[in-house]
Amino acid sequence: MLIVKKFGGTSVADKERIMNVAKRCIRDYQEGNDVVVVLSAMGKQTDVLIDMAKDINPTPSKRELDMLLSTGEQTSVALMAMAMATFKIPAISLNAFQVAMHTTSAYGSARLKRIDTERIRHELDQRKIVIITGFQGVNKYDDVTTLGRGGSDTTAVALAAALHADTCEIFTDVDGVYTADPRIVKKARKLKEITYDEMLDLATLGAGVLHNRSVEMAKKYGVQLVVRSSLNEEEGTVVKEDVRVERMLVSGVAADRNVTRISLVGLKDVPGIAFKVFDVLGKANVNVDMILQSIGRHGTKDITFTVPGDASDDALGALEKNKDVLGYEELSINREVAKVSIVGAGMMSNPGVAAKMFEALYNSRININMISTSEIRVTVLIDVKEVDKAVNAIHDMFELED
Amino acid sequence: MLIVKKFGGTSVADKERIMNVAKRCIRDYQEGNDVVVVLSAMGKQTDVLIDMAKDINPTPSKRELDMLLSTGEQTSVALMAMAMATFKIPAISLNAFQVAMHTTSAYGSARLKRIDTERIRHELDQRKIVIITGFQGVNKYDDVTTLGRGGSDTTAVALAAALHADTCEIFTDVDGVYTADPRIVKKARKLKEITYDEMLDLATLGAGVLHNRSVEMAKKYGVQLVVRSSLNEEEGTVVKEDVRVERMLVSGVAADRNVTRISLVGLKDVPGIAFKVFDVLGKANVNVDMILQSIGRHGTKDITFTVPGDASDDALGALEKNKDVLGYEELSINREVAKVSIVGAGMMSNPGVAAKMFEALYNSRININMISTSEIRVTVLIDVKEVDKAVNAIHDMFELED
Repeated sequence: MLIVKKFGGTSVADKERIMNVAKRCIRDYQEGNDVVVVLSAMGKQTDVLIDMAKDINPTPSKRELDMLLSTGEQTSVALMAMAMATFKIPAISLNAFQVAMHTTSAYGSARLKRIDTERIRHELDQRKIVIITGFQGVNKYDDVTTLGRGGSDTTAVALAAALHADTCEIFTDVDGVYTADPRIVKKARKLKEITYDEMLDLATLGAGVLHNRSVEMAKKYGVQLVVRSSLNEEEGTVVKEDVRVERMLVSGVAADRNVTRISLVGLKDVPGIAFKVFDVLGKANVNVDMILQSIGRHGTKDITFTVPGDASDDALGALEKNKDVLGYEELSINREVAKVSIVGAGMMSNPGVAAKMFEALYNSRININMISTSEIRVTVLIDVKEVDKAVNAIHDMFELED
Repeated sequence: MLIVKKFGGTSVADKERIMNVAKRCIRDYQEGNDVVVVLSAMGKQTDVLIDMAKDINPTPSKRELDMLLSTGEQTSVALMAMAMATFKIPAISLNAFQVAMHTTSAYGSARLKRIDTERIRHELDQRKIVIITGFQGVNKYDDVTTLGRGGSDTTAVALAAALHADTCEIFTDVDGVYTADPRIVKKARKLKEITYDEMLDLATLGAGVLHNRSVEMAKKYGVQLVVRSSLNEEEGTVVKEDVRVERMLVSGVAADRNVTRISLVGLKDVPGIAFKVFDVLGKANVNVDMILQSIGRHGTKDITFTVPGDASDDALGALEKNKDVLGYEELSINREVAKVSIVGAGMMSNPGVAAKMFEALYNSRININMISTSEIRVTVLIDVKEVDKAVNAIHDMFELED
């Protein structure tokens, strides 16, 4: 088997943890597998480097920031190779230049384009464990790029796809994907399996276990993902295309507090006005999620939508700057909201799932602010203070603990 | 003018110093020069990284150690580019991969083979200050190498040679080359100029201002070096091929305390025995310096020689392991010795210089242990406790303060 194993910053934060990760990888190697390890920077090293940069220049060039940040993973991989050597296991570290991890040019948020597997194959053929820097790449100018937060997951999946790995294990500080956040729902249960689409919806909705782009890529190339804990030996959750025939109606409940609701009141009711609003936001790089359009007074329109909480300032700035073009009367903003969603591939063929969710919320006297749905997801916007109550009520209603 | 400026770790140890170096480079840039900056890792970062490595693996692979250490300079150059940007000066950092700094494969002590100047020229043509990682390279396997301690000097000189720079300024914490160590000799005087050969002898003899290989390379390619202080605006010392016609007899006095004397007593007096001894030491990578061979008792030979103090354990190990092959009766070792040397291109045509040096030592009642000479140097081995007295006596005898 060829196994790609990815460990985040927490898993390699100090000597003891590095040794533990080394041992874990060596076990697979000694069972005869080819092992490729992808690492993030140690602990909070990326933040430390960002602080160093900002101390010198509050708005550092993204190119130079990537040059700086990429030292973090290079440090991890070199130390890991040294750790494995103490167990007399041949291991070699490779950075983005050496793997030829080609990306787009967008510093800070580059996308992987192509990986040359020649060097990796060569090292695996010599029965070495190959340890690769996550999160980073090289663009066509030969400059260092980074893939953005959580990018190491994407590196791991891309490597698994390029190498046709049998499995890609993502180690985190949780031991799998749960029916709900165990910190909120005491009875939350770990899922054995989940589909890519469910995982995507969960990732987007802030379950925070896997980086969204990595799941998209895994789906596209059919890479089998396993989400496991680096702290214990639990089996984790397998993410793949098809799950067992008897589907659960709902796989999980997710909550996302990083939401802001913005309303534009009194827009002119003319064709193309919605386009103009979302064009302005798109150009400001703001992702719009739930959208509600309604008729206002005196032949005007109101448009309400949600944006990620950390993009709300950018959204506000863009909307206020373009007030004349858009011609709204009033802009209102609410940061005290949250999204709660149910996700499940079984939903597709089962009408009435949404109604059951609304019933749970109604029984708990929780007001629904906005609703959006996809084939395998129902999301409601509610008051942020009601999130825990809502998630528990829904979890109970669908009997997810069983 | 094209100027290469090299700053060591002390000069970029913190934000304030980085800003100072940035300003200093920008001044040259704003006068219309093309500026290439070579940096070492910040402060003691290289030592910090070595300690991290050794904490995980007391004998880390040299390949992985180089992979780790090279992050140090990459951090410096990225931060420097950010610092320059705060002054609205276009600057770009480049690492060994980006410069295509080709070296031999010897990890930890690689030698530069070839530099592609295309990328650097391209950036200079766009009127950018180009900031390059010192100390590191890439070998033919595409692996990171380092040039050994002081390697950043070599990087700077190699770049100056490859780019046909008009001058190569090496910034250190002293403001030039002195007739003797100012900490030992109060009356020591800064030299305006010195020849490559004199500088080479001084470097080898532990004056410690410039890395030996960098001076050799500067001589080979005719690169004009300037040794200056990063702390003040003094003019420094120019190192070049020819100095003014009227030569000083002696340019300076140097002391080197990193010396151990080893004697092999009672070797068989057969041909090839000296070869065997130095072959054993060569294979253990120990540099032998002064050598004295004498007839011992009963038709045996004694060989006494000096090795660098930090190589004495390696030397001892190799000699003891090969005791049977070498067949000596006794091995004695003295770590309490030091070398004191006078260096001067004017010595060549002036007999009697050595005698004058011995006279100074004799007047101070300092015992000479061993003597070695070259065309422009006389070195004596003395008791380490007498170094300061010896250096002062010699400095006075040759009236170097004038």
